[in-house]
Amino acid sequence: MKTKYPIGILGATGMVGQRYIQLLENHPWFEVAWLAASDRSCGKTYGEAAKWRLDTPLPERIASMTVAAAEPEGAPKTIFASVDAAIAREMEPKFAAAGCAVLSNSSAFRMTPNVPLVIPEVNAEHLHLIEEQPSRKLSGGYMVTNPNCSTIGLVMALKPLQERFGIEQIFVTTMQAISGAGYPGVASMDILDNVVPYIGNEEEKMEEETLKLLGSLDGHAVTPLAARISASCNRVAVVDGHTESVSIKLTKSAIREEILAAWAEFNPLAGQGLPTAPEQPVVWVPQPDRPQPRLDRNRGNGMTVTVGRLRPCGLLDWKFTALSHNTIRGAAGATILNAELLASLGKLS
Amino acid sequence: MKTKYPIGILGATGMVGQRYIQLLENHPWFEVAWLAASDRSCGKTYGEAAKWRLDTPLPERIASMTVAAAEPEGAPKTIFASVDAAIAREMEPKFAAAGCAVLSNSSAFRMTPNVPLVIPEVNAEHLHLIEEQPSRKLSGGYMVTNPNCSTIGLVMALKPLQERFGIEQIFVTTMQAISGAGYPGVASMDILDNVVPYIGNEEEKMEEETLKLLGSLDGHAVTPLAARISASCNRVAVVDGHTESVSIKLTKSAIREEILAAWAEFNPLAGQGLPTAPEQPVVWVPQPDRPQPRLDRNRGNGMTVTVGRLRPCGLLDWKFTALSHNTIRGAAGATILNAELLASLGKLS
Amino acid sequence: MKTKYPIGILGATGMVGQRYIQLLENHPWFEVAWLAASDRSCGKTYGEAAKWRLDTPLPERIASMTVAAAEPEGAPKTIFASVDAAIAREMEPKFAAAGCAVLSNSSAFRMTPNVPLVIPEVNAEHLHLIEEQPSRKLSGGYMVTNPNCSTIGLVMALKPLQERFGIEQIFVTTMQAISGAGYPGVASMDILDNVVPYIGNEEEKMEEETLKLLGSLDGHAVTPLAARISASCNRVAVVDGHTESVSIKLTKSAIREEILAAWAEFNPLAGQGLPTAPEQPVVWVPQPDRPQPRLDRNRGNGMTVTVGRLRPCGLLDWKFTALSHNTIRGAAGATILNAELLASLGKLS
Amino acid sequence: MKTKYPIGILGATGMVGQRYIQLLENHPWFEVAWLAASDRSCGKTYGEAAKWRLDTPLPERIASMTVAAAEPEGAPKTIFASVDAAIAREMEPKFAAAGCAVLSNSSAFRMTPNVPLVIPEVNAEHLHLIEEQPSRKLSGGYMVTNPNCSTIGLVMALKPLQERFGIEQIFVTTMQAISGAGYPGVASMDILDNVVPYIGNEEEKMEEETLKLLGSLDGHAVTPLAARISASCNRVAVVDGHTESVSIKLTKSAIREEILAAWAEFNPLAGQGLPTAPEQPVVWVPQPDRPQPRLDRNRGNGMTVTVGRLRPCGLLDWKFTALSHNTIRGAAGATILNAELLASLGKLS
Repeated sequence: MKTKYPIGILGATGMVGQRYIQLLENHPWFEVAWLAASDRSCGKTYGEAAKWRLDTPLPERIASMTVAAAEPEGAPKTIFASVDAAIAREMEPKFAAAGCAVLSNSSAFRMTPNVPLVIPEVNAEHLHLIEEQPSRKLSGGYMVTNPNCSTIGLVMALKPLQERFGIEQIFVTTMQAISGAGYPGVASMDILDNVVPYIGNEEEKMEEETLKLLGSLDGHAVTPLAARISASCNRVAVVDGHTESVSIKLTKSAIREEILAAWAEFNPLAGQGLPTAPEQPVVWVPQPDRPQPRLDRNRGNGMTVTVGRLRPCGLLDWKFTALSHNTIRGAAGATILNAELLASLGKLS
Repeated sequence: MKTKYPIGILGATGMVGQRYIQLLENHPWFEVAWLAASDRSCGKTYGEAAKWRLDTPLPERIASMTVAAAEPEGAPKTIFASVDAAIAREMEPKFAAAGCAVLSNSSAFRMTPNVPLVIPEVNAEHLHLIEEQPSRKLSGGYMVTNPNCSTIGLVMALKPLQERFGIEQIFVTTMQAISGAGYPGVASMDILDNVVPYIGNEEEKMEEETLKLLGSLDGHAVTPLAARISASCNRVAVVDGHTESVSIKLTKSAIREEILAAWAEFNPLAGQGLPTAPEQPVVWVPQPDRPQPRLDRNRGNGMTVTVGRLRPCGLLDWKFTALSHNTIRGAAGATILNAELLASLGKLS
Repeated sequence: MKTKYPIGILGATGMVGQRYIQLLENHPWFEVAWLAASDRSCGKTYGEAAKWRLDTPLPERIASMTVAAAEPEGAPKTIFASVDAAIAREMEPKFAAAGCAVLSNSSAFRMTPNVPLVIPEVNAEHLHLIEEQPSRKLSGGYMVTNPNCSTIGLVMALKPLQERFGIEQIFVTTMQAISGAGYPGVASMDILDNVVPYIGNEEEKMEEETLKLLGSLDGHAVTPLAARISASCNRVAVVDGHTESVSIKLTKSAIREEILAAWAEFNPLAGQGLPTAPEQPVVWVPQPDRPQPRLDRNRGNGMTVTVGRLRPCGLLDWKFTALSHNTIRGAAGATILNAELLASLGKLS
Repeated sequence: MKTKYPIGILGATGMVGQRYIQLLENHPWFEVAWLAASDRSCGKTYGEAAKWRLDTPLPERIASMTVAAAEPEGAPKTIFASVDAAIAREMEPKFAAAGCAVLSNSSAFRMTPNVPLVIPEVNAEHLHLIEEQPSRKLSGGYMVTNPNCSTIGLVMALKPLQERFGIEQIFVTTMQAISGAGYPGVASMDILDNVVPYIGNEEEKMEEETLKLLGSLDGHAVTPLAARISASCNRVAVVDGHTESVSIKLTKSAIREEILAAWAEFNPLAGQGLPTAPEQPVVWVPQPDRPQPRLDRNRGNGMTVTVGRLRPCGLLDWKFTALSHNTIRGAAGATILNAELLASLGKLS
């Protein structure tokens, strides 16, 4: 690959924006070329505008870039967006109309019928929905979204089981990391020595996004999976990594070994050469007290979902614990992997 | 009351043993008269033997008491016990055989058919089982147990609903405090910036104890509640207070106001004058992000269970969050309230 | 005492404002009569306006009170104030000019020559400075301040030593709790698994306030203590309680027993009947690893300063650890104790 | 380099032992060839014997290695040791007598006159002390130690200043991470929402090791630096990374720019090609609230010490904050860098 795709970042100073920058440093295909944030930051250097919160240094080239206004003029043709839903709702269609591929981590359009909500390992074929977007014909631009941070870990653990056994009922209780709320996000007075049993709209997002992701593309639209689902979402004192207690009822009964095999053999992107795709997307950890966020969140550079504690459920069929890095696999890495898939399909410019 | 009941404590140096001492300081009916712990502590003063971990000072009278051998000789007739199950299995029957009322927080005999497992607000009538114990006739001694710390909060939230509507299915995921594991208990390397999705035998205990507690006394034995139940237990970075995400299926449908009324009107001990009984055993907190352990665990001096977030469940009927103080309502306070109930029934000496 | 002094609270919705309300509930002399906060809260009930963050329930009487505008009209004659320095600078003189006794936890006027900065056990005589305030003659109103939360623990530990031995050099490094920064205050992303080695203006406040508090009243002004001092302030993951590593050089050499005796015998308020004064203001804890914030902050209802680890210093004479509850002894309790002292002197109405 | 040096690890299952394994995976010069631990582990595979606590997976080759008895027979000629002082005192001389180069993280022999205590950037010349060891002549074996985890960050920050300006007085207060205490180490009940102002023998170690490290080699022995030093050591709720508030008195006065230049220009290992040496050993972070452990501990793969907050001290000359990764730079990485230096000097076989 001779030259890299120039990438623009909308919401560059936020927690996910910072992760985009971190993960794109030394990326073989992509290069950060344009940074936009709120009016307050516009015109400043990124180093001045952002309070860098990651544990690798802010790259100097990025620190000295000037933050641009959040307008399509001057922006590159590929945009990674992670902004508040209300802002996304207004801004992302403008960039798509101007011919950009908008790869969004925002929730604004995830459930819009002609906008694909995609995890490459799970439902790459849903990307065909971009052809249903009016902007696609007019300017070439389109929108693609990735799921909410708590949804991804669940869906990646479920997909191999759905393929082999079918899934009819899903129970999930989350224990989510503070980084999922951005910065400053969760007040320390709310989470030290504490649990907050509520995250606004999170349960609704998990429930509906899961069914769309596991749904089937039928011509011009996605038919959601016909399963029942219930999510309970909690915030706990963890920096990164969402832990989820999951119970499921399968259509076709499965024994333990079959479930472990389904996870172990799940690797739809194998051999496609996408740089951010982990060697194995779902990894089983055999120890009885794993996965744990501090120990397992960085597997596969934060792109691997770990599962453990598979055991029979007193109500449904099986229960287990799933864990994923919420700002990498669950946000910035999700957008980047979507972009890599689109690039490999010739849909980026 | 002229003189107080003298109380002996088995396992006096442990976390729950310390809570017994703290909660009995200035108790109107009971007085700590005897302390026993492992051989290592025997013969030392309590102040030397125990590493006091509570945030009120160790009472000086207690500090200077000598730790006795864990033998019935010299022990008072009422024993509060909180020791490892293996030790309890051997030791508690010896005290009962010697004529003691053994009120135990240990798990050893909770599921034994002729040993009552009791929460006074929930199933006081199960205390009749003590008459089924051979020691009762021989020496007057008997054993009564209180539930596991994670079980109590769940069962107290369920009982008012079971009475009015019946319960058929129960889903619970816990986020449990570190104090539940004793001292030193959970290593800080295991819980800082982390969740541990496993607590040994905890899920089994929660499931079977819940059904026994909600079961019915039929002559000489308890028939467990005929409900299906599934528990998933996690450890989180909270000092005190177990938080539980609960979903339930009711026999008879109920609307929100009926459920809130069931909780609000639940007060079976009202007017009985038990000193440790909270004014209201189950309190609804209306804020959307409550209950929270740091803010709600001390309600009713740690004896009140708080519930919140009642909302429809996508799989069963209703879901909600319950919270209880694990070393007070869930352990030491549970034993003490059992003792108060037995005293009021004339069963202590 | 027939009727209670009506108290007005400026900054009633903040963390310290909440502590005023909590600590004044059931206070024998004082009663909350008026609550003021920012314009945003004005006109709402307190229950609506405040996000209550304490672990005792918000009293219902307070919850239903209407938040007033922060103007002297309608306010009672005694005002407890805890607002940002910039707001205090403008607002507190207005209340004093209108005849109010303004007892402030704000930093705005602490170092003003004719405003007393007082800890009742340390420098009650500095209260004479109120007679130097112009408002005192015109309307009867005046201002009295209490120190910064990190200063109080240090000064209370030093005062008994200064009295007996003189103090020439002071080194202090703090490890301060998050509640000192208010709410939302410190972002959880900044403090979980972290230390923040900086608190804006804190070191300057500690250094200059300490010398004023330990200074001598010479007619119309305070001459600060002629000692050298250096403070280094850090934020750590503790909810309440500031821990301080202190080293000192004394004027007159002292042996260990003399220092312990100075602390043990320090009790200038003994017998004065001030309701909030702790039985003993400075308490030595003998264990080698104490004081600790979680275990010792609530001594004396949060009004006692605990000291421990006294040992020789390789550079100065002695070093030790001091601990105090930052929002009780270090803020709300400090204001209340000042008010009690003023009431006992007949200076409140 | 054709073949790698085979490395044996004494104390392989402990926290530092695990870090040795982690850091040696893919090391260009060294290869783990032998693992020893306590008798309890001997004969098991490492995967069975160790409770792996790091956030990278245990390498499979290591997991399947058999843990050997802690005897020189069968051990390679280069030993990395991190065991309790009492065990080290007995064991390390046995390996040296048997001809091994023992590179120890244990405290047992750090202050022994003929045992070098070395940080390669600070006092590489002290390695000549190995020639003073009897075993060196008899078998070729010798012992080299690296400092305590809290000492290294301090000394690396001080060395550049000592070289240019001289240091006469040192004040340091530490806020140390829990990983420094090993596993299980600090109980979570002791550190959640808490500070422990005591670490056994830590202050003594910091004080004496610092002066030896900064001392001068005079023929056959090290003359410690003639400076006065006082250390106060605290444990805080941080996983990795020791933060230190430091104040110093210099012999020759220095302005801010000169101090920053001393740090920036300090790089005695530059160009020597030691694989673990960081690009820059001491890095200044200019933000007013840095360094912070979560954000800065991993600089230079955990081998860089970060310094910040340089400002005048009210008592001595300057104060600043220093931070270092306690189990990498402060323990396992320290041993490895010592080994690399010895290898480059031809002292390993």
